[in-house]
Amino acid sequence: MAVPVEAFFLDPHAQGTLQVRIQQMIAQGILSGRIRHGEKLPSTRKLAQHLGVSRITVTLAYTELVANDYLAARGRSGYFVSENAPTPPPAFAGPAPSADRVDWARALGQRFAQTSEVTKPLDWNHYKYPFVYGQADPGLFDHANWRLCALRALGGADFHALTSDYYDQDDPELIAFIARHTLPRRGIQARPQEILVTLGAQNALWLATQVLLTRDRVAAMENPGYPALRDMLLQARCRLAPVEVDADGLPPAALPEETDVIFVTPSHQAPTSATMPMARRRALLERARALDALIVEDDYEFEMAYPTAPQPALKSLDRDGRVIYVGSFSKSLFPGLRLGYLVGDETFIREVRSLRASVLRHPPGHVQRTTAHFLALGHYDALMRRQARALHQRREAMEAAITAQRLEVAGLPGVGGSSFWLRAPERMDTIRLFERLQEQSVLIEPGHNFFAGPSVPRNFYRLGYSSIPVARIAEGIALVAKAVTALS
Amino acid sequence: MAVPVEAFFLDPHAQGTLQVRIQQMIAQGILSGRIRHGEKLPSTRKLAQHLGVSRITVTLAYTELVANDYLAARGRSGYFVSENAPTPPPAFAGPAPSADRVDWARALGQRFAQTSEVTKPLDWNHYKYPFVYGQADPGLFDHANWRLCALRALGGADFHALTSDYYDQDDPELIAFIARHTLPRRGIQARPQEILVTLGAQNALWLATQVLLTRDRVAAMENPGYPALRDMLLQARCRLAPVEVDADGLPPAALPEETDVIFVTPSHQAPTSATMPMARRRALLERARALDALIVEDDYEFEMAYPTAPQPALKSLDRDGRVIYVGSFSKSLFPGLRLGYLVGDETFIREVRSLRASVLRHPPGHVQRTTAHFLALGHYDALMRRQARALHQRREAMEAAITAQRLEVAGLPGVGGSSFWLRAPERMDTIRLFERLQEQSVLIEPGHNFFAGPSVPRNFYRLGYSSIPVARIAEGIALVAKAVTALS
Repeated sequence: MAVPVEAFFLDPHAQGTLQVRIQQMIAQGILSGRIRHGEKLPSTRKLAQHLGVSRITVTLAYTELVANDYLAARGRSGYFVSENAPTPPPAFAGPAPSADRVDWARALGQRFAQTSEVTKPLDWNHYKYPFVYGQADPGLFDHANWRLCALRALGGADFHALTSDYYDQDDPELIAFIARHTLPRRGIQARPQEILVTLGAQNALWLATQVLLTRDRVAAMENPGYPALRDMLLQARCRLAPVEVDADGLPPAALPEETDVIFVTPSHQAPTSATMPMARRRALLERARALDALIVEDDYEFEMAYPTAPQPALKSLDRDGRVIYVGSFSKSLFPGLRLGYLVGDETFIREVRSLRASVLRHPPGHVQRTTAHFLALGHYDALMRRQARALHQRREAMEAAITAQRLEVAGLPGVGGSSFWLRAPERMDTIRLFERLQEQSVLIEPGHNFFAGPSVPRNFYRLGYSSIPVARIAEGIALVAKAVTALS
Repeated sequence: MAVPVEAFFLDPHAQGTLQVRIQQMIAQGILSGRIRHGEKLPSTRKLAQHLGVSRITVTLAYTELVANDYLAARGRSGYFVSENAPTPPPAFAGPAPSADRVDWARALGQRFAQTSEVTKPLDWNHYKYPFVYGQADPGLFDHANWRLCALRALGGADFHALTSDYYDQDDPELIAFIARHTLPRRGIQARPQEILVTLGAQNALWLATQVLLTRDRVAAMENPGYPALRDMLLQARCRLAPVEVDADGLPPAALPEETDVIFVTPSHQAPTSATMPMARRRALLERARALDALIVEDDYEFEMAYPTAPQPALKSLDRDGRVIYVGSFSKSLFPGLRLGYLVGDETFIREVRSLRASVLRHPPGHVQRTTAHFLALGHYDALMRRQARALHQRREAMEAAITAQRLEVAGLPGVGGSSFWLRAPERMDTIRLFERLQEQSVLIEPGHNFFAGPSVPRNFYRLGYSSIPVARIAEGIALVAKAVTALS
């Protein structure tokens, strides 16, 4: 590989003759690991021209570097970094800093560190028993058709959709499809100006928290609940009211009187997977109206309803425009897609649209158009049906294995879902369980992150089954049970 | 097209017999425009099963709808929406809202409306003389190789990069390329933990404003300057100090004593295109050190340097770690890509990484990996060289035409660039000029949005030349000059 001439600049702070400064510049590049063994340097003519120095100066510098074994001359092919050149020390720190460094502890105006610890290895796909949650299963995903749709969205006809700056707008084709096909299946009618495309459900929830909350307002969230939502609410600096969920999800009567915004996951409660029954959905809407509170419905995993069709969304029962709906394609397709949407009153959507424009303008055009094609060609529906069949099979294997191994289920999906919520013996810290199982190539998710409040139970854990082959389930659950027994 | 059975739900609030409610549900779908003329309905068997009612009830409802001309029966093919069915009124408002609507004026906790008016038509590519700024030119872009790289990033080997949830991380291949190749060309050395990938420069600047500013801090920005940055600073509710730029960009001596963060575009000042000379860059760093202020360098259009190579970035002269660097691939490739990056001290990057994780997790994996391939295969450099040649030619045509038409140049790029900044006669409002020219298929950009402060000049405008063919330039500039004369 050749090092481009543009990568060389003379350090204006450096001392010495031009020749020495050129030598230093190149040696520095090699020592810092920026230029590597065997790489070709620019010709003396090119470098001289680029730096605005005479060619003889560069030639002298190169010759000196050859003498010092930094460079090797290979006849007419030019100069290369010598195989004997010194290698950079492992922790090379870059140019020597000046004495007067910035005090970053003071310089940072605001801190955004996450409270929830991450115990999700990025290389989950190298584990034999990945009971992880929410990653794509290469065996289930319709890779071939996704590729065709992406290719079509890269074509000449879609050039504008691929490249354009939409400013605060979205791909009109995706919006039209969501309005005409995706939302009606959830019982929701919405016009294009009531829909905003987001960088996944994460981004949708974040935008909603920013627009709806202030320091004085009270946000009610499920406990246990989605840890990333708790982080957002803490960052929004509002008042946080965790509400204990039961087997039917969030109990409306337990919402505090001063609640302003209710965050809820009626399709599958995260993490217990409870599906909220219709009667409770109505009661929740009644309660919200009585409190004059808004509801943010994260329609979490509605596609994971099987063998029966999902219930209509809470939003479909909403006659006041009180419910803000969060949908996601990242969950149903793959998380790296980063695509979701918000549905709500036009006034609300106008504000989140403005905020989104400031924060990031719009989700990439190609991602939006590819998804629009995948939806419009019917691949999405076919994929959801295939996934539901596979998940149904896995769920049955999970239930059988968990029962056989006498693990204690603390929450299980009424219908569908993609995970089980389990309780280990009371004194066990499931981080220990996680660590022990990791050594045996089993991945589980410790549950403490899902809890808010002063006394966080440490003995819960989640077992996802959206990325594990059905044939590995029984073996994997047996290993989990063995580790639970060993740690008890 | 067939309407999926999942799109039907019985309204739980509706009155009447099951048969009537089914009729209403379908008629409502047609009247709302959700189900359209000629679309096929689910079979009576399927719909009955889905709704959990008897098949005879559905058949009776369908028969009644046929009698009312909502549906048409086509023998054994089933039921279709009749061509004579009523069409939705133009402003169909969805289900009747209840009396007790949400008061959105009160419900919104925070407002984010933009102060800058948008005068950028989304259909700019339909104009004959698009002197627009910052859109992709289909004639210049290397569509074929981009497509190949995207296809490669969709392949089996990159499945993990495409689909994975990276949480707060980025594509390691893209980061490695930026660290080893992109930044060294700007004279910058950075380790991977000092780099964060963002949704374009917009998102990079936004993240930086959130982390660095508070209500008490003073942000200095160029005047005229980038309007979207001004919006961000207003939203961050910090104290804003606009500093008048001159022909060399931001004058360091004019920075107020209380400045905490300086936002600057040294490569090409936005919108005047001035390139900051080396001596002023050093003076700016000295001044920042004296003020103990941080600098956010938006390395705006550094690729647009031609015929000579660009100067090294301000960050390359920084010995204190005081400069935060913003780079963008959206500007050099195409804005719909939404990809940029931040480079800065590790402590700073850690905080923006946390914030980004909350706001949107990470830029889509496929976009990152496609760009990494495009860079690594050398297509990016080749494209930049080709673009520079074309822009050089256009710039010469612009200069010749502007001189010939005696338009007044208020700011012109010292080297390279992609736009000219012009001054119309003093009393002219360039929004009027914009409107008049729009009728003649000429697009210009009024300049008022770039100014801060109580008295905003209305007589500036920007003419971009990155999306207009060289053959149209003389004609287009002649039309601009004619309109300026006519409005004088």
